[in-house]
Amino acid sequence: MQQFPLAIAKLIQELGKLPGIGSKTAQRLAFHILSLNEDSVKQLSDSIIVAKMSTTLCSVCCNLTEKDPCPICSSAKRDKTMICIVEEPRDVAAMERMNEYDGLYHVLHGAISPIDNIGPEDIKLRELLVRLQQHSEVEEIILATNPTVNGEATAVYLSRLIKPSGIRVSRIASGLPMGGDIEYADEVTLAKAFEGRQEL
Amino acid sequence: MQQFPLAIAKLIQELGKLPGIGSKTAQRLAFHILSLNEDSVKQLSDSIIVAKMSTTLCSVCCNLTEKDPCPICSSAKRDKTMICIVEEPRDVAAMERMNEYDGLYHVLHGAISPIDNIGPEDIKLRELLVRLQQHSEVEEIILATNPTVNGEATAVYLSRLIKPSGIRVSRIASGLPMGGDIEYADEVTLAKAFEGRQEL
Repeated sequence: MQQFPLAIAKLIQELGKLPGIGSKTAQRLAFHILSLNEDSVKQLSDSIIVAKMSTTLCSVCCNLTEKDPCPICSSAKRDKTMICIVEEPRDVAAMERMNEYDGLYHVLHGAISPIDNIGPEDIKLRELLVRLQQHSEVEEIILATNPTVNGEATAVYLSRLIKPSGIRVSRIASGLPMGGDIEYADEVTLAKAFEGRQEL
Repeated sequence: MQQFPLAIAKLIQELGKLPGIGSKTAQRLAFHILSLNEDSVKQLSDSIIVAKMSTTLCSVCCNLTEKDPCPICSSAKRDKTMICIVEEPRDVAAMERMNEYDGLYHVLHGAISPIDNIGPEDIKLRELLVRLQQHSEVEEIILATNPTVNGEATAVYLSRLIKPSGIRVSRIASGLPMGGDIEYADEVTLAKAFEGRQEL
């Protein structure tokens, strides 16, 4: 006999497609959702579709936004001479949490990855180049792609592409995370920390 | 400034209410959902509301079902002399996976827990007693509540309640899980395994 009623099986299947949600967790979530009252279930279901329907990509920085251009791009308080390049919208949120940076962003929506067949034309790179042509006030590009193989490759690619135009290009530092322990650091991180050492 | 567009913040908040989903995971899920195409998002959203709307509790066993009575209660092939008592609908699914039991179920939707102010009247106990009165063919009640403080308390309570009526009441065994390691077993489990030892 079939294990779950059809509608529940479908729900488990849909939840199981989410990242980091295996079939056991999907089952647990599904039964939790079914144990909620109708209002709560409707709120959850609606929040998903509303979030998708009411957000678009900012036509300037490609970040997710409810109005175009996004609040950061349209803010008069932000420093328009700096653009921080990140891979994903969630990286913008992380940067904003640090409360240190008041420049603009550009979201690539991915990184170059030859293995996965993701080339420069598959990320929001053309949008960045058009933007740089239109806004001559940009003085510095900060490359904040992830310190991974793909992120590094993307940073190198972008740096080679942009530097000839005379804009300063920088890369965020790699090294030991604050509160970290040298004993447990991997060799690559440690080597990066050495390489990036600064005089006191 | 506000960290996320309102609709995204709402989605993160809703996802964060799910069990085992912290705020970081909720953010990751939310951004994953927003990266899907509209169809996939609609499927996810719909599956949630459809699962809730199309399932009710079986009027016999209180399990979640799309038609009442549920397929197990209405099946001619199931042994109607045995009722296995479980705490949650997902426990029925676990039991069915083992493919060994062909009796009926009764889902309590919880366990007695004085600390949380959950008494016998807060679980589907009255439904069980009514059921036992109406179906005199029941010969055995198998108590399959969890081997936890609350599950054990519920099992003891049910056993005292049902035994006087002459129905056989049994409790599923506690002991070492198969593939487990005696060295790493906790004392309570080990004591249960000793207590429940069987002659070979």
